[in-house]
Amino acid sequence: MQIPTFEDVLAAHARIAPHIHRTPVLTSSYLNDLTGAELFFKCENFQKAGAFKARGACNAVFGLSDEMAAKGVCTHSSGNHALSLSYAAGRRGIPCNVVMPRTAPQAKKDAVRGYGGVITECEPSTTSREAVFAEVQARTGGEFVHPYNDPRVIAGQATCSRELLDQVDGLDALIAPIGGGGMISGTCLTVRSTAPGVQVYAAEPKNADDAYRSFKAGHIIADDAPETIADGLKVPLKDLTWHFVQSTVTDIFTATEDQIIDAMKLTWKRMKIVMEPSCAVPLAAILANPEVFRGRRVGVIITGGNVDLDNLPWMKG
Amino acid sequence: MQIPTFEDVLAAHARIAPHIHRTPVLTSSYLNDLTGAELFFKCENFQKAGAFKARGACNAVFGLSDEMAAKGVCTHSSGNHALSLSYAAGRRGIPCNVVMPRTAPQAKKDAVRGYGGVITECEPSTTSREAVFAEVQARTGGEFVHPYNDPRVIAGQATCSRELLDQVDGLDALIAPIGGGGMISGTCLTVRSTAPGVQVYAAEPKNADDAYRSFKAGHIIADDAPETIADGLKVPLKDLTWHFVQSTVTDIFTATEDQIIDAMKLTWKRMKIVMEPSCAVPLAAILANPEVFRGRRVGVIITGGNVDLDNLPWMKG
Repeated sequence: MQIPTFEDVLAAHARIAPHIHRTPVLTSSYLNDLTGAELFFKCENFQKAGAFKARGACNAVFGLSDEMAAKGVCTHSSGNHALSLSYAAGRRGIPCNVVMPRTAPQAKKDAVRGYGGVITECEPSTTSREAVFAEVQARTGGEFVHPYNDPRVIAGQATCSRELLDQVDGLDALIAPIGGGGMISGTCLTVRSTAPGVQVYAAEPKNADDAYRSFKAGHIIADDAPETIADGLKVPLKDLTWHFVQSTVTDIFTATEDQIIDAMKLTWKRMKIVMEPSCAVPLAAILANPEVFRGRRVGVIITGGNVDLDNLPWMKG
Repeated sequence: MQIPTFEDVLAAHARIAPHIHRTPVLTSSYLNDLTGAELFFKCENFQKAGAFKARGACNAVFGLSDEMAAKGVCTHSSGNHALSLSYAAGRRGIPCNVVMPRTAPQAKKDAVRGYGGVITECEPSTTSREAVFAEVQARTGGEFVHPYNDPRVIAGQATCSRELLDQVDGLDALIAPIGGGGMISGTCLTVRSTAPGVQVYAAEPKNADDAYRSFKAGHIIADDAPETIADGLKVPLKDLTWHFVQSTVTDIFTATEDQIIDAMKLTWKRMKIVMEPSCAVPLAAILANPEVFRGRRVGVIITGGNVDLDNLPWMKG
């Protein structure tokens, strides 16, 4: 296990700067009044490819030697990592092979292809995904870039909180959603290196609370097949992300599906931003635990904006 | 008719700065590729009270003498001006009376009351609105702040393009939606004073194309009761805004309802911002007239973000 260092973060930031947006920080006096906290929303929904994952993907892709890059990159993902790796590979002009379940949303498949990624479909099961991915990797020789359990990816994601700490003075805490833990690990890496007084909180759907239970138990507990509207947060922690979570995170909060949908709609309505259900989990956690955040300056990472506008959660039922 | 000057704009900007956001400018490489232009979106949907109208309303409210302010302000509006004037009056701690049709959306009424505005309802007709407003104004003695045909309001709206020209170098053109003409007039005022080489374009729904027909005819033509999804753009030009339109606007383009809805959904999807149908009219115009904008650096003013999330236009039918 290779733990990325803050020097890796600095190198990542220089490497990816031409390929990513320095995303803006928005505030809402309405949400400040509602929570009693001062909230600073780092809008990675405006990031290239629509999510913070462009940071880690660009760092992995642009860090490859020319020789390695020639064979391209590959991954398995049905979500933003697939888009982001395709985007990064497209910027470098190298092949990107993505294994996606055939049941993945057509819009996501279209977006991967729009960035030049090549999709190989698998059945929606771990067995099929691993078998198909092994075949694709063997055939192409492409470098595997894991969605989160990869030091290059974590160093890339860490550039997000580095920007936020530069954009907002005197933050007391940062909060981000947790799924596999890539964003939270990057946040921990930046904070413990540059702002050790800042507390890092993670927010997780109650329906997929494996990170919460892992944190409380002191060892990784993986859920089997969690179901939540926050579809970016279903994946489990791995060794590298667990290292950061268990060593640096102050606490993990969970939110119910209704709390997530309410916080999502509230953010759209008051902040006028399109963001994924996953991004609403931190605000839902803040609203449900006001005593933790009241009177504090809190950075909230809005992780991505790739939603299906024809299928919004408050339209259902 | 008192034409506001650029000195009025400078005074307005200093006056309102503590009460408004300097809104960010966003870009989209996807939309640049699609249009062949370089587009810079000035995001007034993130403005206080959710629309650029907070600028003009704050300028009017904070420019009042203490004696005048004590009697408060009043207006008639079913839209963003009602919210913005209530917001501005609330910031100054003075009364705000708003005449709104009883058929106005409940969400808009709730928002006005949320900012401390007092609503007097009228029937949804010009006769009723004028009669009720006259009664309210006589009773309260409040200062009437017209939604757009007011030099204080136009000077306030002009601060938006002043910021945009400061935020983006080398713009060739600016484009904004046109209804009553307040934003376009402010844009003309700034441009002709500080950047006379920049062209100003207006974009209007084809279903409410009174400004377009006025511009071509050389005199004001008012529509009777236009119907368009871009509900902020139904009102006619007045003498003050006509002065700016006929003297400074380069051209006016129109867009169909379908073009507006398509451009709105495209912007939500690719730029991840919540904006009103009115804001989509400029992009619809650019997409329908690519030869005018290709190869140019174009500032696009996104005017507001107060939409009903339960009733999005692409959900209908």
